[in-house]
Formats: sequence, structure tokens, C-alpha cells
Amino acid sequence: MTTVHRVFNFSAGPAVMPVPVLEEIQRDLLALPGVGMSILEISHRSKTFEAILEQAEADIRTLAGVPRHYRVLFLQGGASLQFSMVPMNLLGAGATADYIDSGAWAGKAISEASKLGRVNVAATTKADHYTRVPEQSELRLTRGAAYVHMTSNNTIEGTQFRELPEVGDVPLVSDTSSEMFSRPIDVARHGLIYAGAQKNMGPAGVTVVILREDLLQRSTARKAELPAMLNYAVHADERSLYNTPPAFAVYALGLVMKWLVARGGLSATAAVNERKAATLYAEIDRTGFYRGTAQPTSRSLMNVTFRLSTEELEQLFVKESAAAGLDGLKGHRAVGGMRASMYNAFPEEGVNALVSFMRDFEQKRG
Amino acid sequence: MTTVHRVFNFSAGPAVMPVPVLEEIQRDLLALPGVGMSILEISHRSKTFEAILEQAEADIRTLAGVPRHYRVLFLQGGASLQFSMVPMNLLGAGATADYIDSGAWAGKAISEASKLGRVNVAATTKADHYTRVPEQSELRLTRGAAYVHMTSNNTIEGTQFRELPEVGDVPLVSDTSSEMFSRPIDVARHGLIYAGAQKNMGPAGVTVVILREDLLQRSTARKAELPAMLNYAVHADERSLYNTPPAFAVYALGLVMKWLVARGGLSATAAVNERKAATLYAEIDRTGFYRGTAQPTSRSLMNVTFRLSTEELEQLFVKESAAAGLDGLKGHRAVGGMRASMYNAFPEEGVNALVSFMRDFEQKRG
Repeated sequence: MTTVHRVFNFSAGPAVMPVPVLEEIQRDLLALPGVGMSILEISHRSKTFEAILEQAEADIRTLAGVPRHYRVLFLQGGASLQFSMVPMNLLGAGATADYIDSGAWAGKAISEASKLGRVNVAATTKADHYTRVPEQSELRLTRGAAYVHMTSNNTIEGTQFRELPEVGDVPLVSDTSSEMFSRPIDVARHGLIYAGAQKNMGPAGVTVVILREDLLQRSTARKAELPAMLNYAVHADERSLYNTPPAFAVYALGLVMKWLVARGGLSATAAVNERKAATLYAEIDRTGFYRGTAQPTSRSLMNVTFRLSTEELEQLFVKESAAAGLDGLKGHRAVGGMRASMYNAFPEEGVNALVSFMRDFEQKRG
Repeated sequence: MTTVHRVFNFSAGPAVMPVPVLEEIQRDLLALPGVGMSILEISHRSKTFEAILEQAEADIRTLAGVPRHYRVLFLQGGASLQFSMVPMNLLGAGATADYIDSGAWAGKAISEASKLGRVNVAATTKADHYTRVPEQSELRLTRGAAYVHMTSNNTIEGTQFRELPEVGDVPLVSDTSSEMFSRPIDVARHGLIYAGAQKNMGPAGVTVVILREDLLQRSTARKAELPAMLNYAVHADERSLYNTPPAFAVYALGLVMKWLVARGGLSATAAVNERKAATLYAEIDRTGFYRGTAQPTSRSLMNVTFRLSTEELEQLFVKESAAAGLDGLKGHRAVGGMRASMYNAFPEEGVNALVSFMRDFEQKRG
């Protein structure tokens, strides 16, 4: 393998990938071993690709302990398309869906669902500028709702649910795009879980949906009017091969799953993620020179958002950190400040490098 | 570059890619030159990725001579999602869309459109088992139709339109998935052109849509009810960056476009494709041992379908050709027989190797 210069990539997504995964992709790019064709060229109907797809699903099932009565789907369009597919499939005429408004992405999910059916915003922390996620006591749930939708980690605001909300018998639908497989997940407490892959799971271009089998009845009932490509039951029946899947993205995601399994699974991964976040939050809290924007009980382990006393200092911080090989620390344009995204593949050395940089910066400018 | 064993890949798609493109992807897989991150890791909001996207569009515009009042979009979901997006965006309530039924994929487009609006099948060659495409004189077009939909190359049946149908002022919408950029295309005669990339343009996971700007008004008028991800105007306004795009697939497609430009563009490419097809059809027609299934005037330059006198012989042919390093010659399960797909990146040596194999096979079994 040639030596290449790589920076520390704090990007919120697409994001850093495990180096051993990149190396395996590189090694086999011209031809998969024993196949004589690149992963970019093989038929999705070939035994080779079917085995890749099945192994990716098997590893997902192992990692998350997915119960048998849940299906795993590989789709396209990102979480943004799920914002529409969820209500198209699960929200019947006359029914209401409850949405928990915990930030910008939750807001997009609400706005797309509102085009398609009746939506109740069960709780919102907008008045707190989304610096925290809603608490259980704040939820105003609809009796007999079609589902309750939540955004488990809020990438832009740097907040995260520590506990799943209690929603009784109503299916819980969770957009876990920026945290899926960064920690153990209790699949059985959900009706449907979805995530774009490009944070913790692989490259952009594939979306993972895990859903409880009985919910497919709602999709089947809509078969006559719902576009086939937007119908969960069609994809479930065809085992994600209704049409040509994003084969390369599924393959790369599969390699990341294999890497997670080899690393000891989700508990071991969560321990590393907790350590990385604790290191960075400790530095943020050390003197008051830096200020975390999320309320402590809602702090995200994935996206750490913080500010400095002036925007000038923040601009300087972003500029000098980039020059020091710490890339992507500028916060989302909607909230400003800084954001350090530290997904599964982000190395601990990168966090230590950031902490050193922060200390130096504080000494020079504090 | 290590030497790898590669077979001749006659797959109908995903399909063979240009080797220099695969080599460049491989070389830069761990880090794009001067960037320090893999294409699988860079933010879609970065200058690097914006430049990749813009260059891909610029090369598409150069290759196809796309007029200024047309937009080029990079979407997800393949042609199958376009089967629904086209009527969702272009077929208003009370209007009728004309569809030309030339095969299995045209049939899927018709069935998806029928869920969403009024469809008139303007012509069908079903009675001829789709062994040819409809002629101009057979078209029963609706006055004032929302659009006319055609499938320019029929991958499964091995047929292709030589000339575009005359449809007057009505926008012509063409699914060109299995031929886009295999020959020059008169964009100005279309309202909208779409293609999944995985035949001639790149790996699976990205769909190219070229559409006339004035048609976007129909999408804008539906903004309140149409899901954002399914609205052409949203993607056009956001220059294909409304949400995270399939960055790797766009990058790989861009490299294929660069390869096509360097090769001399679409006329030069078409000359090679015509030579490949002529060589194979000449062999099929030589003695009568092989029988082409498409009627001569409708024969596809991309997908050459042929049969032998018995299914036993056909099975033997598929088995022995695969053993000889000629992969993917089994015809689609819907029509049987053999199919040789020879997209842009398929090498002429591969066609010669197939012709040699066919002669040997005929000598042994004829």
C-alpha cells in the first residue's frame, strides 16, 4: 500500500471511513477475488452480489440483535426520502402521526409528512433553540396514532436522546442517521428505524431501513396507488433487489459492518465513542474559554457543538485548525460556531490532536 | 498496478467499466490528490466535491451538446424511480400522457404512471412479442398530451429506436437507460431524458436526468403537495445538492465522462459500437445456426439477443462460454436464449472472442 497523506476529518457526513475498509476496497477495485470483475461491474443478480448483500444483512442482524420479525432493507434516497416514505406507507387517511420536534432535521421530517397526512407535533424544544431534546413528561401523544417519529441524534444541534421515549403500543419510528450503530440499539422497541449510511455505516448512496414485519401490511394495502419504488413491501418481497441496488455502497457498508463485528460489536464501539466524547467535552468545560451549546443531559456523543466568545475568534479557530490538519470543524451554517463530528471510524488520536490544538489556541488567544 | 485476471463481461447492467477509470479510482481510493480524504469521505458541501459535480455536468453538456435551457440533474433510485417521478411532476390532473409500449421496461413505466394519472398507450408491439419497436405510422397520439414517453433501447428484447418519433409540440420523455451516451443524442428534440448510470455511464447508484427548463414550472406548481425529494424543481434549484448525493457514483460517472471526451466524444464512440454490433450480427446471420430475435430494422447496438435451435443447446452455450471467460451471456429470464450486452466500455477483443467461440461451438454442435 502506498503511503498517503490523510487529515483528521471531523465532517458531519459523508464522514471518515475505517482505513482497513478503504484498503480492502482499493485492493479489489479492479476485480473481486476469484470473480474477474470489479464490484462496480458485477450484475446485481449474480451469486457474488447476492452473497455480499446477504452478508451485510447478517452482520447488521448480529450487531444490532435484530429480531426475526424485523426486515432489513437497503434503499436509496437517504433519510430525506424516508421523510416521505414513512408517511406514504404508514400514515393512513384519517389517522394522525406524532412527531417529536428536536431540531432542523426533525423539522424537515415534519414538513414532508405534513404534505401527506395529519401530523401532530407531540413536543418541541424550539423555544430552547433545540439545545436539548424533549423529555418524556413533555410529550403530548395522540391516542391511536399511526406512529411516533423521533430523530435520535440531532446532527446540527449536537443533541441526542439518551433514552427512547415511552410510546406504548404505537410504533416508534426513529431517524437514526447520525448515530446508527454507534452504540447498542433496542430494535424491538421500534416499529421502524432508518439511517442514511454516510455517517457511521459507509459511504453516501445507501439507506438502511429496519422495520417490523407486521407494518408491511400497511404498505401492501396501498400497493395499487403507491409507486413500487416507494413501497416498503415491494422492497421487502424482493429482498432489496426490486431494481438495481446501489451495489458499491452496499458492498462498502458490508465491509464496515465486518469491521464493526471484528472490533467487538456495538458495546465495544460505544465505549470508544463515549471516551472520545468525554475527552472533548472535558476540554470544552475546563475553563469557560469554550462553551458547549447543547445542554449537558442532551449532549451528543457523535456531534460536539461549541462556541467561542466572538465570531472573529471562531473564524480564526476554524482557519487555524484546518491548517493544522483538523478538517471540517466549522459548524452548520444554521447555528454557527464549531462542530466536531466523531463517528465510529474517527480515531482517538484525532480527538487528542483537537484537544491539544484547543489548548494551544486558548493559550494564544485566551 | 498489480496484474489482475478480468473476464469479458457481457452483463446487461451493472456492466463493464473502462479500465483506466477503474485504475484511477483505485489509485486515489485512500485520498484524493491534495485533499487528504477519500472520495468516500468528503463532504458534499466541500469545494472538492462541488468541482467534481460541476465537471461531470460540464462534460455531459459537451458530449451531448446539451442546450443552455436544459438542466442536468444527478438523482438516486434508478430509472425505476423515474417511472414515478415523471408523471408526479409532469402529468397534471385531467391531462393524459402517451406511452409507447416497446417492451418489458416500457410496460413497467406504463404501470407506474397509471397509478398516478391518465395514460394512453399510443402504440404497442406486444403482438409481435416486442421483436421490433413501433413505427411512426402506428402511433395514436393524444392531442395536447402532457408528454409522450418512450424507451429508446429495450434491454431485455434487444431492440432500439433508430429514429426519434415525431410528436409535434408535445414534450418527448425518453428512458435511455441502456443507451445514453452510446451514440449522439438530439437533446433539443426531448423534453426530458433519463438514464440509470449502470450501463454506459458508470456504476449503479446515480441516475442522470436532462430536462428542458420550462417543464420545471409543472414541478414548482406542485411544490406544496409533492415530496421534495421527488420534485425536479427542488433538485434543479439546489443543483443536485438538496440532500447528500451519491458522491462516489457521481465521481465515477465523471471519470467515465472524461474518458468519453478523451476518446473523441459520442460520434467516435458510436462508430466503435456500430462496428462491435455489426461483427456480432454478421456472425449470427452467417449460417442460420444462430437466430437473432429482434427484427433487423429494430436491432439494438447495445443488447444483441439470439437463440439456438433448442434450449438444451442454449444451456450448453451459456455454460461453455462462461467457462471460456465470456461471462453474462444468458438472456433475461423473461425471453430466454442468449444476450450479449456490449456497452461503451466493452472491448472489441471481447466481441472477437465471442465470435470465435460461436464458430467453434457451431462446428462442434452444428
